[in-house]
Amino acid sequence: MDAARKWAESHRQKHQDDYFEFLRFRSISTDPAYKSDVDACARWVQKYLADSGLHTELLQTPVHPVVYAESRPHLPGKPTVLIYGHYDVQPVDPLELWTSDPFKPTIRDGKVFARGAVDDKGQIFYAMAAMRYFRTLPINIKFCIEGEEEAASVGLSKILDGQKFKADYLLVVDYDSYDEQTPAINLGARGILSLEAVLTGSKGDLHSGLYGGIAYNPNRALVEMLSKLYDSNGRVMVDGFYDGVTEPTAEEKKAYPERMQKADYTRQVGIEAFGGEKGRSLQEANVFRPVLEINGISGGYAGPGFKTVIPAKAVAKISCRLVPNQDPGKIARQIETFLQKHVPAGMHLHVEHHSGAPAFRSKPDSKLAEAVASASSEVMGRPCQRVLSGASVPITAPLAKAAGAEAVGMGYGLPTDQIHAPNEHFDMTRFERGLLTVIKTLERM
Amino acid sequence: MDAARKWAESHRQKHQDDYFEFLRFRSISTDPAYKSDVDACARWVQKYLADSGLHTELLQTPVHPVVYAESRPHLPGKPTVLIYGHYDVQPVDPLELWTSDPFKPTIRDGKVFARGAVDDKGQIFYAMAAMRYFRTLPINIKFCIEGEEEAASVGLSKILDGQKFKADYLLVVDYDSYDEQTPAINLGARGILSLEAVLTGSKGDLHSGLYGGIAYNPNRALVEMLSKLYDSNGRVMVDGFYDGVTEPTAEEKKAYPERMQKADYTRQVGIEAFGGEKGRSLQEANVFRPVLEINGISGGYAGPGFKTVIPAKAVAKISCRLVPNQDPGKIARQIETFLQKHVPAGMHLHVEHHSGAPAFRSKPDSKLAEAVASASSEVMGRPCQRVLSGASVPITAPLAKAAGAEAVGMGYGLPTDQIHAPNEHFDMTRFERGLLTVIKTLERM
Repeated sequence: MDAARKWAESHRQKHQDDYFEFLRFRSISTDPAYKSDVDACARWVQKYLADSGLHTELLQTPVHPVVYAESRPHLPGKPTVLIYGHYDVQPVDPLELWTSDPFKPTIRDGKVFARGAVDDKGQIFYAMAAMRYFRTLPINIKFCIEGEEEAASVGLSKILDGQKFKADYLLVVDYDSYDEQTPAINLGARGILSLEAVLTGSKGDLHSGLYGGIAYNPNRALVEMLSKLYDSNGRVMVDGFYDGVTEPTAEEKKAYPERMQKADYTRQVGIEAFGGEKGRSLQEANVFRPVLEINGISGGYAGPGFKTVIPAKAVAKISCRLVPNQDPGKIARQIETFLQKHVPAGMHLHVEHHSGAPAFRSKPDSKLAEAVASASSEVMGRPCQRVLSGASVPITAPLAKAAGAEAVGMGYGLPTDQIHAPNEHFDMTRFERGLLTVIKTLERM
Repeated sequence: MDAARKWAESHRQKHQDDYFEFLRFRSISTDPAYKSDVDACARWVQKYLADSGLHTELLQTPVHPVVYAESRPHLPGKPTVLIYGHYDVQPVDPLELWTSDPFKPTIRDGKVFARGAVDDKGQIFYAMAAMRYFRTLPINIKFCIEGEEEAASVGLSKILDGQKFKADYLLVVDYDSYDEQTPAINLGARGILSLEAVLTGSKGDLHSGLYGGIAYNPNRALVEMLSKLYDSNGRVMVDGFYDGVTEPTAEEKKAYPERMQKADYTRQVGIEAFGGEKGRSLQEANVFRPVLEINGISGGYAGPGFKTVIPAKAVAKISCRLVPNQDPGKIARQIETFLQKHVPAGMHLHVEHHSGAPAFRSKPDSKLAEAVASASSEVMGRPCQRVLSGASVPITAPLAKAAGAEAVGMGYGLPTDQIHAPNEHFDMTRFERGLLTVIKTLERM
């Protein structure tokens, strides 16, 4: 057994105790009621890193604080790796579906149940704990651990300027492994934009008998408008939506082969209707092509029973997942232009734009990518897979840009971990795999 | 001053006291929590009619009781008028928008504020009070006052068979006047059907990054499906929807002229987008043509903030307003067939059919129609207008059929009375107009 494994084993209880302490903070970033819990959690992270020998700062933002840390003294000639993660967590509703208190971590069947057990407390904490393995760090390390990843990283994005985050490499510790036995490095993710469209037809809800045949129903106008967003091949009809989008190269197709078949999706989550662009493979449609999704629609009364209303307004929440060369702001404006063009005369459409983030794509052969791949292969005893994600860690591209760094994503999450859902769980085995992978990565750099 | 007016004036306080007592019952029919209030209200109505000299019965139904009453002895050779109304009321949410307790009737600015002040306690109560004017009734009278009009009259529709409701005429006291100064008789209303469509794509909500491009989003499928319900001229595309629908005759167009212009709708309720069939006048589209309305749509997350989900399911609540010769059950099945035809392969659509009711249309020259028109003209000092309603009192057609009676609608409601909404109100002036109209109608018969 090598030194790192021995150390991990002998510190197992201590790591679990500290990890559980971290999980007990109710650091829900989207709900102002938890502001003091978020702040206390940030201070705990700062103290843990300070106690690990790093120089730390709590960076105030317009929203929640960012924990910054760096190794001192600076080692000239050695690379600098910026490690990114987040200490905030998703809300816990519906609480009644949790088997145990989401903020009282519990081990059942060898699994650690708690909100944030994986995302991202469990994952960023093994990276933090790895620092304590080294008497002196072999390279320069910086940490950026924010408190708003679940709330669009608004605060962090405001303080990206300047020298603080400069690094050669950015290691984002917020990803999944390939499968339970196979490690992965993440070399790209789609970008995102989101907006809300509110279509208003009258001052108040109308009686559908007295006004049916007279008023243009906003529900009807909304479904007509939204249905025009796609053609019958699943292609998005917004002008300019695909401008600059490149086809995956033969090398890319080879490097990122199909991971799952339709039957796998049917078995795992019950999908039987597939909706991507016709003629594209599932992998292509999920990671190389942008998509537009209607995440929410609402208009009139849709609760139990029935109300025969013509609603005053109807609402759609729309988001896109973007690929390289797509600018979130530009595409959001193109979508608004498209929607406005399809508003019936006399009806009013208000579009609210939320923050967006571009896609990122990293080189597969950067020094960090090779180090993580090799370290995780050693830990797991299996070749590491390269993956691209159809999802988004929105801050990655702006943070990599601010840092001037090549980004690599790593992690030991699994799609079955119930992140963002009741009964989120991780386990100490995967925790330790992450811990060892970070240690061995730094040794290789 | 005639005898009826004198009597009404001398009994004004007594009528108001009894009316307010009636309004205090929380007879909300759709909420099982109010079952005992509904029952107590029914017994109060029964007692009032018994104390007015009628023979009464409380008819039990599978849901709420129906108050039945008839004058005895039967006067041979005299017509029988069945008077219909309802003692149940709509729910009161949102309670915080009420200026005073909805079940503590209050007079402010000469208006009576309470849930049911108009619909239908205020209206049916003046018809009940009118009985006490007569030492002996000049014709045969029956009452059918149900407790479920706001819940689709399920109970009453189950007990319509048999001789009990047989009558020559049916007087439905649940309508509006033409305007504040002009009385009206209602000679028709549209029928109704309603259904709920649930479209399911997966076992649970999916992450729109991980599944975007793979899963067919039920929100997208729903808007595509619903948008196909109409062509660009606002015509409903369901096969057979317009079968049997006749064009209004020249006489009908003359008898029921346009009541309001587009500018009136814009001023009154803010409608600027008009959605009826192209080439039809507003009146035509509202009363002579059937419509299909999407009363509710819901899918995914549409609350504050944003959730990037692909929902497991999306829901639409749809209703139609029907004209004569349209069968609600048949059209509901045609709509379901149409929707099922547009379900994407692999997605599942479940349609739940609610109860429906056909349209009714009455002769303008029946003895009761002429009596109400003449009585209300005398009371108001203005010619009575004939109207057709775009809305529905669903029980009218089946009740008229069971009774073998010609139906006439009357009432002194106004569109500004806030029925079904917070701060519903009526006034004692209109109450007394209703009272006198019923008295003078019976005298004329």
